[in-house]
Amino acid sequence: MTESQGGDTPASRAHEAEIALADPAYREAVVDLLGVLAYGEISAFERLAEDAKLAPTLEDKVAIARMAAGEIDRVEPLHRRIRELGGDPFVAMAPFRSALDLFHEHTAPSDWYEGLIKAYVGDGLADDFYREIAAYLDAGTRELVLSSLEESTHAAFVVDRVRAGIASDHRLGGRLALWGRRLMGEALIQAQRVAAEREALSALLAGGVDRPGLDLAALGRLFTRLTERHTERMSELGLDA
Amino acid sequence: MTESQGGDTPASRAHEAEIALADPAYREAVVDLLGVLAYGEISAFERLAEDAKLAPTLEDKVAIARMAAGEIDRVEPLHRRIRELGGDPFVAMAPFRSALDLFHEHTAPSDWYEGLIKAYVGDGLADDFYREIAAYLDAGTRELVLSSLEESTHAAFVVDRVRAGIASDHRLGGRLALWGRRLMGEALIQAQRVAAEREALSALLAGGVDRPGLDLAALGRLFTRLTERHTERMSELGLDA
Repeated sequence: MTESQGGDTPASRAHEAEIALADPAYREAVVDLLGVLAYGEISAFERLAEDAKLAPTLEDKVAIARMAAGEIDRVEPLHRRIRELGGDPFVAMAPFRSALDLFHEHTAPSDWYEGLIKAYVGDGLADDFYREIAAYLDAGTRELVLSSLEESTHAAFVVDRVRAGIASDHRLGGRLALWGRRLMGEALIQAQRVAAEREALSALLAGGVDRPGLDLAALGRLFTRLTERHTERMSELGLDA
Repeated sequence: MTESQGGDTPASRAHEAEIALADPAYREAVVDLLGVLAYGEISAFERLAEDAKLAPTLEDKVAIARMAAGEIDRVEPLHRRIRELGGDPFVAMAPFRSALDLFHEHTAPSDWYEGLIKAYVGDGLADDFYREIAAYLDAGTRELVLSSLEESTHAAFVVDRVRAGIASDHRLGGRLALWGRRLMGEALIQAQRVAAEREALSALLAGGVDRPGLDLAALGRLFTRLTERHTERMSELGLDA
């Protein structure tokens, strides 16, 4: 995915970033992307802090609270980069608040398990999406984006708890499978809304001078990959996608 | 406060800790103390995450969410030390849950400002208390306890917001002054309850073989110092204590 980005020495990277960021449209798109990522972390913090209240044990509560703290720790590097690019982090995040808030409002977990699935499946989907987008960025921005996605430590905890829950209550599996589909649907609706409203961000995927883009066929393959990964995650949880 | 702890080289410190921790009552008291500290951080996280929802701006929300994340980051070193002393962190925290939960239940902030005051005045009081207790600990445990108290970064933010609030609404000052007194009262009630129930922990203050203790007059002076520091904090906020 990254072979089109050129050499990967510090010097070539700095040069590449300089060229890319000289393009105002690209720069605007990067600020947008960092803004939506940063607000995503903040709203993930809020959601996880809320889920922590539903934890059946203090051990579970601490595990979720640690995930929440991890989300907040990733905000500052994104804000710093937005400032370096001449932007204001809070202005950059503003356009994405309503889409992300609506996503969370429409998918408020009704119990502990729904919260766990949402943390795992929702974050997984978002991470996959940003990882795909990262391939279209200059190397410096790409590294920053990828470093904000290291969430794999949650996975074992969530898989363990959900599998144990399903083992002790078989009806739970059916309900959570439906819940996973709803999360996917809501995420696509809000993503589409953001794409329609934020031209600079969607143009990022279409490419530009010196940057490779994505044609319609490639966009189709991207969606196929996202859906496949979603299905894999659901089956890791012991659920039908 | 620390001159009675002996020399402070690594070797003398290790020797001192060895002697102190060989006393089962001291060891039990230290596990108790680390347990209440750790649960205090967890409940502070919960409270701050809840307060973050009341934040008037996204900037304020992020500031409070960062404080919450900081509390959780301090849990793991305390848990690790409890395990090193042969304890189970969750067993060690259990006896303190009801007192701390009741404190938070009885002092649920009704608005953003009450939450700020609680974060500042409540944490300040708890920190002062643990700092006083730290003087009666072996050097290794003392360092761990003191390192879990570094909360001074919050202060400037809270003082700034509360002073601005009072400047724009003079009635707020009177209400918040009352609120500060209630926080102090509730904290004393719950602290007394814990002291009555946890003999090992209260015995820590009374001293033991090779460890200095606190007589009634010294305990009185400790309370005077805590009250004085509370008054100072309230006046930093522009409030009567």
